[in-house]
Amino acid sequence: MTVDYAMMTDLYQLTMAQGYREHGMGDMQACFHMWFRDYPFKGGYAVACGLDQLAELVETYRFTDEDIAYLRGITAPGGGQLFSDEFVDYLADFKLDVDIDAVPEGTIVFPNEPLVRVTGPIWQCQLIETPLLNCVNFETLIATKAARICQSAKTPVAEFGLRRAQGTGGVWASRAAVIGGCSSTSNVLAGRMFNLPVSGTHAHSWVMAFPDQLTAFRAYAESFPTNCVLLVDTYDVEQGIKDAITVGLEMRERGERLMGIRIDSGDLAWLGKMARRMLDDAGLNDCGVVLSNDLDEITIQSIRDEGADVMSWGVGTKLACAYDQPTLGGVYKLSATKAAGADAWVDHIKITESVQKLTTPGILDVRRYYGSDGKIAGDMVFDTNHGVESDETIVDPYDSLRRKHLAGKTYKMLLQPLARGGKVVLPADDRDALKARDRAQEGLVHLDETQKRLVNPHTYPVGLERGLYGRRRDMVARLRGIDDRSRL
Amino acid sequence: MTVDYAMMTDLYQLTMAQGYREHGMGDMQACFHMWFRDYPFKGGYAVACGLDQLAELVETYRFTDEDIAYLRGITAPGGGQLFSDEFVDYLADFKLDVDIDAVPEGTIVFPNEPLVRVTGPIWQCQLIETPLLNCVNFETLIATKAARICQSAKTPVAEFGLRRAQGTGGVWASRAAVIGGCSSTSNVLAGRMFNLPVSGTHAHSWVMAFPDQLTAFRAYAESFPTNCVLLVDTYDVEQGIKDAITVGLEMRERGERLMGIRIDSGDLAWLGKMARRMLDDAGLNDCGVVLSNDLDEITIQSIRDEGADVMSWGVGTKLACAYDQPTLGGVYKLSATKAAGADAWVDHIKITESVQKLTTPGILDVRRYYGSDGKIAGDMVFDTNHGVESDETIVDPYDSLRRKHLAGKTYKMLLQPLARGGKVVLPADDRDALKARDRAQEGLVHLDETQKRLVNPHTYPVGLERGLYGRRRDMVARLRGIDDRSRL
Repeated sequence: MTVDYAMMTDLYQLTMAQGYREHGMGDMQACFHMWFRDYPFKGGYAVACGLDQLAELVETYRFTDEDIAYLRGITAPGGGQLFSDEFVDYLADFKLDVDIDAVPEGTIVFPNEPLVRVTGPIWQCQLIETPLLNCVNFETLIATKAARICQSAKTPVAEFGLRRAQGTGGVWASRAAVIGGCSSTSNVLAGRMFNLPVSGTHAHSWVMAFPDQLTAFRAYAESFPTNCVLLVDTYDVEQGIKDAITVGLEMRERGERLMGIRIDSGDLAWLGKMARRMLDDAGLNDCGVVLSNDLDEITIQSIRDEGADVMSWGVGTKLACAYDQPTLGGVYKLSATKAAGADAWVDHIKITESVQKLTTPGILDVRRYYGSDGKIAGDMVFDTNHGVESDETIVDPYDSLRRKHLAGKTYKMLLQPLARGGKVVLPADDRDALKARDRAQEGLVHLDETQKRLVNPHTYPVGLERGLYGRRRDMVARLRGIDDRSRL
Repeated sequence: MTVDYAMMTDLYQLTMAQGYREHGMGDMQACFHMWFRDYPFKGGYAVACGLDQLAELVETYRFTDEDIAYLRGITAPGGGQLFSDEFVDYLADFKLDVDIDAVPEGTIVFPNEPLVRVTGPIWQCQLIETPLLNCVNFETLIATKAARICQSAKTPVAEFGLRRAQGTGGVWASRAAVIGGCSSTSNVLAGRMFNLPVSGTHAHSWVMAFPDQLTAFRAYAESFPTNCVLLVDTYDVEQGIKDAITVGLEMRERGERLMGIRIDSGDLAWLGKMARRMLDDAGLNDCGVVLSNDLDEITIQSIRDEGADVMSWGVGTKLACAYDQPTLGGVYKLSATKAAGADAWVDHIKITESVQKLTTPGILDVRRYYGSDGKIAGDMVFDTNHGVESDETIVDPYDSLRRKHLAGKTYKMLLQPLARGGKVVLPADDRDALKARDRAQEGLVHLDETQKRLVNPHTYPVGLERGLYGRRRDMVARLRGIDDRSRL
């Protein structure tokens, strides 16, 4: 699937781009960061995702002839050609020239810390804002949802939400679901594009198309003796299980194995336990029970709590569109500029009535500190132009007297180079979905159990480096006309 | 954007396809219908959408060499090649040979009536199930959400949700939003692909990149004198409006017009009314107020109820991902088969514990009846193989004693040919987004006000033709072993 990322943007990014160039700011450098403000699903963590697609954006970014002709033809509301010929001609030939740093896919991340940093000509940083937010917001959301579901499921989860996904985005949803922990996807295109394990057997219609259920089951087992999970709820679940057992015993006679039976409606816990008993009574202990139908992490946990012995789960709708919170709400904000020829960066901040929407100035990175127990102990957002004060203290951005000293602990840096001068520098290994899944699993091991709780978890400490906190506070005070430092 | 629709499917569609062919059912004809069960957003109607993409699927459907190589290489869980060489080779050359009938885009539709009917070889009908559901579910959902938002807004709504949309699906979300009633989109790629009006001016970062706000506003007005809406809430809204007024008066001096100011944070009703007063006091009565920030139909209605005079609205997140209900949940079910060489169709039904999940047998179409007041009076789902009993009665599928007689009223048929023998026959006009928007507007005029209420609306009557209802009841009784007709 080829995507025209240059055009997959908001019109105002292009009007601003022309405007910056017209006002001598075509070479102004800027720094933007992408982050999210709130924990998705009211949980305790998120799984970063979407960086492979961001790298693809950088690699393929160009305006085609068709794009250029279209842009030239756009009329302004008040009349006339919206874009100047000079600007449109320039777009036809230009090459993206930005640096991007980002957390690797699969990294466990938290609100209020940058996932992506973009530096380069301000108008180029703006052009890529929309597709960058689109892919990182969406895939991080789905990878996080998948991680929660897999955390709850314990046994393997197959993603099969494509039919209920939001359009072609479903292809990347499947990839993100695997990065979050799913063992496979039903999505064949995602399997081919991203080298993901694929799985699937048959639907209710298969059973309906044959004269009777037993004939349908036998036909499937004959065609796919090494991929046989029979769906037993087309008519009556109990009879479905009986027919599956008949076929399972026939397969055993032939030296084959009925891998499982799937139940896709009704009370899954009750029916799942009944199925397990019936299979065991028939001696088919090696035939597993697969459950599906509107599952999410909460329902799965209940079913497990009720004692169902489930070989694997199929999860669709609630995962592929992140039903209970279908957007991450990540933002991308300007934090510093440097005029052409200037030596120093100038910090910027956007203030609003809501303290949650205050931005953070500077060229930021994140240190992730580790405690002696191997768990992660705190994340520090700091300005790379200023460094870190020696006591390595973080300040809660919403509660300035809530602080944590991290000096003496080991740390690693979160942001890694993704592109330099418009060229992707991300190693191929860092773009691999299964390696990203490993990274997420490893990251979750280092997160305390209390912070992984599905509902009402313990909050992980993420703060601003103390010096950065102070500079930001002073900028807000200045912009609000509070001159007396002693009154802050 | 090219999409590999043949591969954008669930793996089980392909295993079933091979299985049908292996069991001599490669030429079995089947009929499937797509419909949804519940009103989206607890409203009173939906706007059908996604049929242009479905036509694109039919036009471009093929397995590429890369697809074929991938399919051949898939390994079964129990070992060995999952698909036979014979089947994979067959896929490489096959051409889709299905008939599709569908409601035109923009048609007002309701639960429990077919939006799409597919007939053709059963394995082909299955292969296209996943992408068909994916596009019709998603786009119908977004078009419906947009219709609700526009119904509430009264004045024009611009869609600008791409950054929060679910990946590349956002391109079709923008199209669906316009079909639902939006006047424009910020999405440049959607504008180019679907010939939609595009709109947009500048972001907060534009203001932050200049030495001060007034300089930023003047620079924008200078670059875009015929497309000037100034965003006034980067620092302080009141000062922002004052600076915009300064620029608006300067523009007027030059014979230009400041079209509007936009507020994107804070209490939009309060700030919007303040802005209107300030603009009027300055004599800028022709400068409108544009509001945005997390809007949906309910918030917009409140803001209007509070008396804000709003020129237009910008709606993003809550529209582009249908925040409060991010999936339509439409299904696609087998209703009849005809073995190769047979003359007559055999009806099929899937029964479950939930009456809502019962399917309807037959080759269905829908008659939409009109009352003498020009409003629509009821939709009748009937079996084209049996026709309609002379009193033209519909039966509520969940309450068999709730009936409505429609004889004597005029009607039109809802399903129109989209493809015949795998070739698209949908006229180009029926694929145009702006014509579909007209169709939706026209359709809403014929829907009673009480059925358009945003919350707790009056339910529009959709029923099964009485004969069809009876045949379905008899099939369920037989499958459940209830033999005594008199006890039904």
